[in-house]
Amino acid sequence: MKIGVLGGGQLARMLALAGYPLGLDFVVLEPAADACAAPLTRHIQAAYDDPAALQRLAAEVDLVTYEFESVPAAAVQQLGASLPVFPRADSLATARDRRHEKNLFRELGIETAPFALVHDLQTLQQAAEQIGLPAVLKTRTLGYDGKGQQVLRNGDSLQDAWDAIGQAPAILEGLIEFDREVSIIAVRSVSGEMAFYPLAENVHEQGILRLSTCLHGDSHQALAEDYAKRVLERLDYVGVLAIEFFQLGSHLLANEMAPRVHNSGHWTIEGAETSQFENHLRGILGLPLGSTAPVGHTAMINLIGELPHAPAILGIENTHLHLYGKAPRVGRKIGHITLRENTEQALQERISQLKNLI
Amino acid sequence: MKIGVLGGGQLARMLALAGYPLGLDFVVLEPAADACAAPLTRHIQAAYDDPAALQRLAAEVDLVTYEFESVPAAAVQQLGASLPVFPRADSLATARDRRHEKNLFRELGIETAPFALVHDLQTLQQAAEQIGLPAVLKTRTLGYDGKGQQVLRNGDSLQDAWDAIGQAPAILEGLIEFDREVSIIAVRSVSGEMAFYPLAENVHEQGILRLSTCLHGDSHQALAEDYAKRVLERLDYVGVLAIEFFQLGSHLLANEMAPRVHNSGHWTIEGAETSQFENHLRGILGLPLGSTAPVGHTAMINLIGELPHAPAILGIENTHLHLYGKAPRVGRKIGHITLRENTEQALQERISQLKNLI
Repeated sequence: MKIGVLGGGQLARMLALAGYPLGLDFVVLEPAADACAAPLTRHIQAAYDDPAALQRLAAEVDLVTYEFESVPAAAVQQLGASLPVFPRADSLATARDRRHEKNLFRELGIETAPFALVHDLQTLQQAAEQIGLPAVLKTRTLGYDGKGQQVLRNGDSLQDAWDAIGQAPAILEGLIEFDREVSIIAVRSVSGEMAFYPLAENVHEQGILRLSTCLHGDSHQALAEDYAKRVLERLDYVGVLAIEFFQLGSHLLANEMAPRVHNSGHWTIEGAETSQFENHLRGILGLPLGSTAPVGHTAMINLIGELPHAPAILGIENTHLHLYGKAPRVGRKIGHITLRENTEQALQERISQLKNLI
Repeated sequence: MKIGVLGGGQLARMLALAGYPLGLDFVVLEPAADACAAPLTRHIQAAYDDPAALQRLAAEVDLVTYEFESVPAAAVQQLGASLPVFPRADSLATARDRRHEKNLFRELGIETAPFALVHDLQTLQQAAEQIGLPAVLKTRTLGYDGKGQQVLRNGDSLQDAWDAIGQAPAILEGLIEFDREVSIIAVRSVSGEMAFYPLAENVHEQGILRLSTCLHGDSHQALAEDYAKRVLERLDYVGVLAIEFFQLGSHLLANEMAPRVHNSGHWTIEGAETSQFENHLRGILGLPLGSTAPVGHTAMINLIGELPHAPAILGIENTHLHLYGKAPRVGRKIGHITLRENTEQALQERISQLKNLI
């Protein structure tokens, strides 16, 4: 069985690493010559909207998935005409546009921060009055790692913010004074079987995820699973879905969702009985889903911008290094480290120890 | 950092899967076009003794290791002239010849079954008298999975046995009525650092390993580690070394050793904090070794000859499937399954459940 992946970055790389033991082979379509996944897959180097390349991919594989949501709709349509593509095209269309995403949350009774649509300076002005400041202006599509976002506070120039996001269609969202950011990784199979990982608590630095810690028995787990289940079922979703929440007292406010394996689920490689990568593959292939039970107490720290000194990292017991084969560059995720310990306290001590090294 | 591997079978495949997260790349040299490791590495398809291919490999990689011990000595010599090759050539030479291997065990005070050298029918006759029957006639080199072995019992024709092993230089070894077969996976780094995994108990069927179970706190652990340490230090060994023992009461009789990652250590992928594959790479690169502590109670079952029905296997909780991408063929190892449970009892129940499916 051959899986095609649109995108050849670290997510495709980790999908392939999880998939070879299942007897799968991988072909990635990715324009960059130095794609992370290229050394361990067959790499078709072409633009995502190159019809000839898409045709070649379709001819070689049995099933297509992707590692990012901004896949051109036409590409998904072309591939979908001849073979299964999961998650489905409409799941992708919903998740890649904050407007559709937020409307879906609302329809399903999932709380969100207050938001309003923005398509020019005038609607931005109206939105700011309606929502109140501080608020965050976010492009509807193509945002990630804090890109395409501007925080607006009283006295800030709306024009500057509008220019800063490239005058792209956007939403203005109330800035929530949350207690914590958490996320749930959920997975649904072609068969309808569902599974949910324990919530992760996420800490961002400069808009980029830095630390995810797997929570054991968190009081918000049931609510998060209920919300995720509503989305999975409404979309007849297939594969892994991540939903990020702001947690505020007993409330979870859905921030955004990602129709793919997600950075806040990388801890599952060592920290869960079955990783999110393997379960994504099991789900899209219609295989029974694997257990999402935690294995020990686990946290993941992203390596951003520069490579750490590997011997120092590996010298700390129970650290697991994951490098993506990417050249270091400011603000770029080039790897992550997973820490697994038998107790919560030991884990917190290791995190402190590790933070001094990176 | 690029690692060259002589051999592109399942061991090379699992080395690559363990090595990519460390940021390594892999080039395998292997004559078969359909090598298991080929889809996820760069594959130089050539004979192991092809000087031009070896030169190409040497030019591309920083360090060479191998997945089997029968590498032509000239190949190791050629590669060793220009780059590090681990385990060292003399470790390989010792491990691939039962004569040298047994003599080393003897020299180091490690118990073995009684044995005698055989190089013709006359010396076989003398050996049979000296050792007594039943005994096993084993070719000195190139034996694996029970190949190149003949059991001799009273009344058997020595001539037939001698012919059956191709009249190759051999040893005759007393057939031990052992209690159990166990093995230890040990690893030593370029720096001299050593680590030892918990013993595995091994069950063979028709000469091929079928089941390995990780033992917790076994009373023979200290003796096995002591024996392994003697070998590692004497050979100034670098990388993973496996030693198989017959256990007889409180005694461990060394049967053979393998200068590489070993089938009886595959359980470490899920069942130990750091897998044998990752620790082999850490060792040959001089990185700190990872913890060999067990994670739960683990066993590994080999898939021999035919592929199981994957959905049935994956439907059993806490099973981990490892397929090698090999075509099924009688007597061929085409994958393995790891089971991990929280208790010994749960593990034994799962093993029974799984055995009904394969």
